[in-house]
Amino acid sequence: MDKLGKGFIQVYTGNGKGKTTAAIGQVVRAAGFGLKSYFLMLMKEFPYNEIKSLERFNDLIEVVQVGKDDFVYKKELPSQEEILKIRNSLEIFTEKMLSKKYDLLVLDEVFVSIYFGLLTIDDVLKIIKQKPESVELILTGRYCPQEIIDAADLVTEMKEIKHYYQKGILSRRGIES
Amino acid sequence: MDKLGKGFIQVYTGNGKGKTTAAIGQVVRAAGFGLKSYFLMLMKEFPYNEIKSLERFNDLIEVVQVGKDDFVYKKELPSQEEILKIRNSLEIFTEKMLSKKYDLLVLDEVFVSIYFGLLTIDDVLKIIKQKPESVELILTGRYCPQEIIDAADLVTEMKEIKHYYQKGILSRRGIES
Repeated sequence: MDKLGKGFIQVYTGNGKGKTTAAIGQVVRAAGFGLKSYFLMLMKEFPYNEIKSLERFNDLIEVVQVGKDDFVYKKELPSQEEILKIRNSLEIFTEKMLSKKYDLLVLDEVFVSIYFGLLTIDDVLKIIKQKPESVELILTGRYCPQEIIDAADLVTEMKEIKHYYQKGILSRRGIES
Repeated sequence: MDKLGKGFIQVYTGNGKGKTTAAIGQVVRAAGFGLKSYFLMLMKEFPYNEIKSLERFNDLIEVVQVGKDDFVYKKELPSQEEILKIRNSLEIFTEKMLSKKYDLLVLDEVFVSIYFGLLTIDDVLKIIKQKPESVELILTGRYCPQEIIDAADLVTEMKEIKHYYQKGILSRRGIES
């Protein structure tokens, strides 16, 4: 599409709130300018409902949710099936990126996926290296590795200063997810 | 509306990218759950175009832009007219909040407005004190005063780790604003 001129690599990381939310805001804002986005949410197959609201933008924002995160809560390693699913979704993501049909591409929770062994740093660096000049690439998740910080153009750390978890309240429907 | 049960006070501050973007993402996500939002953007009368994309949600998200920011670039103090405009918008904001017609209310760039003397900390603390139990209040902007951090439930600092400003590139249409 090449509407952006030069596209950059944005990273949202850190333990604070707002990483995925900022990525959602980013593709919604871009849609206001007629820019097209591909949004791959990793480890959010269910029950995350962010896509409900993005359905109104289905001409401009394509959302795909791949992979479960229940192994994290079960304190298990991800199954081979989960790993394969994530890897396949990354191949499709790469194809989408190279197709140049999209102005922005979001790889949501990609660093958490690396952290839990679903992906490697090299898998992501390979995507970064192949990024067409005109495409904006947005990567989110806790635990961004230094190698990816080095490769990115813009890195923002969402830092938790204060949280109501401290008051013993769990996440709320429509706000957190 | 009282769909949220208990609403909180969220703060997004810091020198990093993603504060307004996270607030946009937040109201869009909430809209996916049928929650209603009122979004007051201060000092963004023009040429910020975020609202273009939010028009698709005009049944659930009401966006109002009040106040210019050109005095900042001119290194002038804000005019009395600008101060009055912002103060009036805050009164309307308070009425909207008290009406309980909205589940989420966003006061975007409120801390910058305090910083530049358009508002006082007390103006904002007054809003916080009046917040109905069921309403979520989201405050964004650089330079969040400690008094408001103390009063908030959730505070996230967006911290700039790396930025392409360093490479001499200015903000880009559809991405930054």
